[in-house]
Amino acid sequence: MAGSSWGTLLTMTTWGESHGKGVGVVIDGCPSGLELKEADIQKFLDRRKPGQSRYSTKRQEGDEVEILSGVFEGRTTGTPISLLIRNLDQRSKDYSQIKDIYRPGHADYTFDEKYGFRDYRGGGRSSGRETVGRVAAGAVAVRLLESLGIQVTAYAKSIGPIEIEESRFDRKEISRNSMCMPDAAAAFQAEDYIRQMMEQKDSVGGVVECVVTGMPAGVGEPVFEKLDARLAHAVMSIGAVKGVEIGDGFASAKSRGTENNDAFRMKVSEKKPVKTTNHAGGILGGISDGSTIVLRAGFKPTPSISSPQQTVNRQGENVKIIIGGRHDPIIVPRAVVVVETVTAFTIADMLLQSMTSRIDKIQKFFSEE
Amino acid sequence: MAGSSWGTLLTMTTWGESHGKGVGVVIDGCPSGLELKEADIQKFLDRRKPGQSRYSTKRQEGDEVEILSGVFEGRTTGTPISLLIRNLDQRSKDYSQIKDIYRPGHADYTFDEKYGFRDYRGGGRSSGRETVGRVAAGAVAVRLLESLGIQVTAYAKSIGPIEIEESRFDRKEISRNSMCMPDAAAAFQAEDYIRQMMEQKDSVGGVVECVVTGMPAGVGEPVFEKLDARLAHAVMSIGAVKGVEIGDGFASAKSRGTENNDAFRMKVSEKKPVKTTNHAGGILGGISDGSTIVLRAGFKPTPSISSPQQTVNRQGENVKIIIGGRHDPIIVPRAVVVVETVTAFTIADMLLQSMTSRIDKIQKFFSEE
Amino acid sequence: MAGSSWGTLLTMTTWGESHGKGVGVVIDGCPSGLELKEADIQKFLDRRKPGQSRYSTKRQEGDEVEILSGVFEGRTTGTPISLLIRNLDQRSKDYSQIKDIYRPGHADYTFDEKYGFRDYRGGGRSSGRETVGRVAAGAVAVRLLESLGIQVTAYAKSIGPIEIEESRFDRKEISRNSMCMPDAAAAFQAEDYIRQMMEQKDSVGGVVECVVTGMPAGVGEPVFEKLDARLAHAVMSIGAVKGVEIGDGFASAKSRGTENNDAFRMKVSEKKPVKTTNHAGGILGGISDGSTIVLRAGFKPTPSISSPQQTVNRQGENVKIIIGGRHDPIIVPRAVVVVETVTAFTIADMLLQSMTSRIDKIQKFFSEE
Amino acid sequence: MAGSSWGTLLTMTTWGESHGKGVGVVIDGCPSGLELKEADIQKFLDRRKPGQSRYSTKRQEGDEVEILSGVFEGRTTGTPISLLIRNLDQRSKDYSQIKDIYRPGHADYTFDEKYGFRDYRGGGRSSGRETVGRVAAGAVAVRLLESLGIQVTAYAKSIGPIEIEESRFDRKEISRNSMCMPDAAAAFQAEDYIRQMMEQKDSVGGVVECVVTGMPAGVGEPVFEKLDARLAHAVMSIGAVKGVEIGDGFASAKSRGTENNDAFRMKVSEKKPVKTTNHAGGILGGISDGSTIVLRAGFKPTPSISSPQQTVNRQGENVKIIIGGRHDPIIVPRAVVVVETVTAFTIADMLLQSMTSRIDKIQKFFSEE
Repeated sequence: MAGSSWGTLLTMTTWGESHGKGVGVVIDGCPSGLELKEADIQKFLDRRKPGQSRYSTKRQEGDEVEILSGVFEGRTTGTPISLLIRNLDQRSKDYSQIKDIYRPGHADYTFDEKYGFRDYRGGGRSSGRETVGRVAAGAVAVRLLESLGIQVTAYAKSIGPIEIEESRFDRKEISRNSMCMPDAAAAFQAEDYIRQMMEQKDSVGGVVECVVTGMPAGVGEPVFEKLDARLAHAVMSIGAVKGVEIGDGFASAKSRGTENNDAFRMKVSEKKPVKTTNHAGGILGGISDGSTIVLRAGFKPTPSISSPQQTVNRQGENVKIIIGGRHDPIIVPRAVVVVETVTAFTIADMLLQSMTSRIDKIQKFFSEE
Repeated sequence: MAGSSWGTLLTMTTWGESHGKGVGVVIDGCPSGLELKEADIQKFLDRRKPGQSRYSTKRQEGDEVEILSGVFEGRTTGTPISLLIRNLDQRSKDYSQIKDIYRPGHADYTFDEKYGFRDYRGGGRSSGRETVGRVAAGAVAVRLLESLGIQVTAYAKSIGPIEIEESRFDRKEISRNSMCMPDAAAAFQAEDYIRQMMEQKDSVGGVVECVVTGMPAGVGEPVFEKLDARLAHAVMSIGAVKGVEIGDGFASAKSRGTENNDAFRMKVSEKKPVKTTNHAGGILGGISDGSTIVLRAGFKPTPSISSPQQTVNRQGENVKIIIGGRHDPIIVPRAVVVVETVTAFTIADMLLQSMTSRIDKIQKFFSEE
Repeated sequence: MAGSSWGTLLTMTTWGESHGKGVGVVIDGCPSGLELKEADIQKFLDRRKPGQSRYSTKRQEGDEVEILSGVFEGRTTGTPISLLIRNLDQRSKDYSQIKDIYRPGHADYTFDEKYGFRDYRGGGRSSGRETVGRVAAGAVAVRLLESLGIQVTAYAKSIGPIEIEESRFDRKEISRNSMCMPDAAAAFQAEDYIRQMMEQKDSVGGVVECVVTGMPAGVGEPVFEKLDARLAHAVMSIGAVKGVEIGDGFASAKSRGTENNDAFRMKVSEKKPVKTTNHAGGILGGISDGSTIVLRAGFKPTPSISSPQQTVNRQGENVKIIIGGRHDPIIVPRAVVVVETVTAFTIADMLLQSMTSRIDKIQKFFSEE
Repeated sequence: MAGSSWGTLLTMTTWGESHGKGVGVVIDGCPSGLELKEADIQKFLDRRKPGQSRYSTKRQEGDEVEILSGVFEGRTTGTPISLLIRNLDQRSKDYSQIKDIYRPGHADYTFDEKYGFRDYRGGGRSSGRETVGRVAAGAVAVRLLESLGIQVTAYAKSIGPIEIEESRFDRKEISRNSMCMPDAAAAFQAEDYIRQMMEQKDSVGGVVECVVTGMPAGVGEPVFEKLDARLAHAVMSIGAVKGVEIGDGFASAKSRGTENNDAFRMKVSEKKPVKTTNHAGGILGGISDGSTIVLRAGFKPTPSISSPQQTVNRQGENVKIIIGGRHDPIIVPRAVVVVETVTAFTIADMLLQSMTSRIDKIQKFFSEE
């Protein structure tokens, strides 16, 4: 059954395998009149590109995006935007090792069980390369949100045991270090930690946090299409994510009502209520409350490690595998832009959906035609 | 926009407000031929009913379910199953306190922002009473899963700071204590802790864990309809849930690849690979791997507390609120059956979807007609 | 698989069998603030009720609608509107004739093939009684459209060989005759024709036409969600419909470009282009062009006839059937309100969808918040 | 809002404009293991290619399809199949005539009203070139249906006033004449008729019929996802279609029950009931009955004609337009393969959906795993 699409009014459909001809995405439902050029998308793709630091894989992916449709004279037309990124790295390789062996922590076994066989070249569709399409689509959503004054920012909150320090939080720092951390000191420690793990032929997990500012209140649809439920879906669908939190998340399960409830106070200047704290992470009853949306994604360590592992092969034999080649010892830094863009896409879609909730606003909309 | 439906092939659409005429659900896409009677559903509704222990609200809800359609001579017909639960507690009350005041931690403010006004009686649609429909629908999904040998079990894993002890885990204990904990000693401590919190006019959060056994491998659709993404969506859509984890969840973010990867070994008796550990929680690449599915939901403390709180009213004035009446000091015990049933429903839906993944199986299916 | 829902932003999910406990519908995504009371819905249900004329079945259906949710203090709240219509006619009957025999022209055989068995009482879910839910939901959509100045009107265009005369077209006449024809003379002839057919134990088909006035231009989504495609889907989903036309329909297949193209001219008073003819039926490229939408549905004759027919039974034997009881010799007059309401519902849904097509309008919408 | 996708389990998302970089489609949900190569798709694209006869436009479109993903070692993998067809005809042209003028019968005006502006080059997204993506996707569905013994065949039934003669029906003739008619004599007359219309600077409509053989009974979902409703939706979404019929269609509206009902008789050899006639067109109650599915689409005349027409321009002035260049005087012959492939796609999708209707078959499916 189909599962490569996301969104209701603003949708994306991604396609492509790691070592096939390319990867891409079709974005449908993007409103007309939005200025969009390839560079707007390329800058997001560049952020997820490997080879950005010495801790990521050296594969030379140009990852150059081509807009095939939906943009005319520099603006979106309202029709589907098809984006193509050719794979450069298609040269025939020796895949004999992974062709018949199920790598632990990977989807090799489950794909074979589900489909009877799989495109084993570099993980095929289950490769992290699948996220190229999401990032490209999310870049378009970012343009849409920007035009409405909404900003989405993600960063690494922790890498292995190294966590950022709130007191040192510096948004500008995120793009300055290879860890994508808003804390230079923590990034330095994290790099060191990763170096140790690489020497031990091991890999590391971490947590990505994402904040959305400038949100209007009223976005999100009860009961099953709550904003937090949609965000959890989107974020959990990123490979290697094993946990999602909104606001205080699991910490609120240990909290008390007197601590966890956010008080409202009138903001006189804006004539609207604001919350004095934000344990809720900007969402109440599944609907945005006008404060900053805060979410976190917990990533497991990269499953590809060069330490020997026990597993089985397609023939049903117990075997040992040592995964060769270079692999990112950590997914998190490259995943930051993935979390940011799927969040942006999901927010944009829900924002459009929220336009139809009140008859008075609908009447006003059509009377102004 | 519509948001009260869940599922693709097996769907539910819930409706109803806390103090309206009733609540209910329409289940569509349920296969024909499943034995189903009201008692099959009632037993699940009884588990979420208040008044089960002295720590839950005393509202007298009969919560008796009536099957209005879709069942004929004791079996499902394949057509929509409409379930109705009349509200008994509709007597006119004094809602003046909450009518104009935004209760902290509740959806009062966001509903008003979204819709312009709200049914303020007992929280209306944003009340936890909304879950009655989900539980009823999930009960039908449980019947479907049982007929395929799949079992779903949820329980309280922690309440405030009290966590169950793995060594004392006893599944039979879950239904024996009012905390729904599989550990009698922890349940005893938790009851005591709640008692203290009530005395302090405070409330408590906790964590619900849910396990699914008997799952075939191959269920879940890459890329956006991964089994874990769907489960995260379903669980996060339950009111008061602020975090969702699969398998080791956020702990895996602090783990290493050598620890976190699950090795495969051949199970000779069944001629298939099994994992020697289950850090992944039964899902690899978004597809079930045949081992037990494990997920957790973190619930915030009940927002309704009788301690004084600062907030604003509809007129834009800063006010103080003390929420009267009796309220559950903890959501978790009553939420256990909610997590269990939405998990069951989501699994059942994805299971049906997985039937169309291979042409050889499709050919076999139709050739046997 | 589920098939009882319709709509994207404004949705309905119908349920219920002919001789079960009742029929109903859940409407989700209806904007808040719309005035709605049971009488608004009841008047549409009364139009489809049998027993209105001597040519329709005498079954005494009260068909009284109860609003169970989604309306508070006389206005829609934005949450699901659940409507219940209890079946009065549930007394145990002798269904032995149709229990095991496949009535020609009915869905008895196909339901049995699909589901293994069926609720045979009065056709169960495949009965025309299913349309009660659609009509009730459509009545809500009519309220929504009215608030935006859009009117939907359906009527019988032909019954058997009797067609209305354009020169005698009188909208007020529609509700005055039992044929729902906007032409008193044609209605008189049609009644006479039906009388003859009843004497011959035969039944009659006909054509329903529906027009939508007050439509803004720009409604409908290329490519697969064109307004005409959605309308065709909705109308063809009504039992007994075998053909759907937009504008000139099949006549345009015999026309020429010079005849069939509608010229545009500026309407100076409104400063906008209008078409001098309307062969297109108000839709160009799947998008409303601001002129009247015109569609037609062709209904087959009622399959239930009391003439002897050849068929087979569940045991695989050739048998003869004479369908007893009273049956409408024609579906069309009661189907008029069904076509009208499904058209209204579909238009309303597409209207809401059209709000998100342009970024300038979206920016204006949110800046006015 | 998004509208470029079709299907539930088997989906396609088309993209591309007439004179943009290319057109294409992403097919998702195609089962794994189906043999598929570019030539399987190319042969369908070649059938819709212009320049096949002297009555179609001379534009040189190579229309060569490239499979970008979803096929590995000659078989579908179960993941999205992305198909790309580059436009060759992108050279800069003089579009000044149609840039600001609304061509009668085209979507120029409605696109401008909806989106604020449009890609005016050759009709952009509203061009018939959009169907390339559908045909390519439908070709994949044809492969799926063939593997299950189901055949879909479309042909021109009438062109202007020229209709095929049942007695001369010859399926092999369809591919032999440029009219795609299964009747050589009718095709000869139709060609002559078109020649006359071209001389008169006029254009012609027609009717395409499509038949599906080898269908199992039980496909189609009541109530809104009836097989005929889905087919009507799919076919009406093809540009220039103004009417859709199933079986006897509008003729049944003039028929009587005794004529229109199809009798069942046991087919002893197959131990199943068959119908002695097929007025219903293979669908009863929205569910396939095992006999041949028959549908028809009525196409309006090509709106592009070189006769002078009255219209308005973007500046709101009344103007005259004479559409230059060569245009097909008839859409029908090239549309035959479009009707055939969207029918195939829709049938394939509904076929997959029908697999989950009975618990006994589901149990069998999973027990055989």
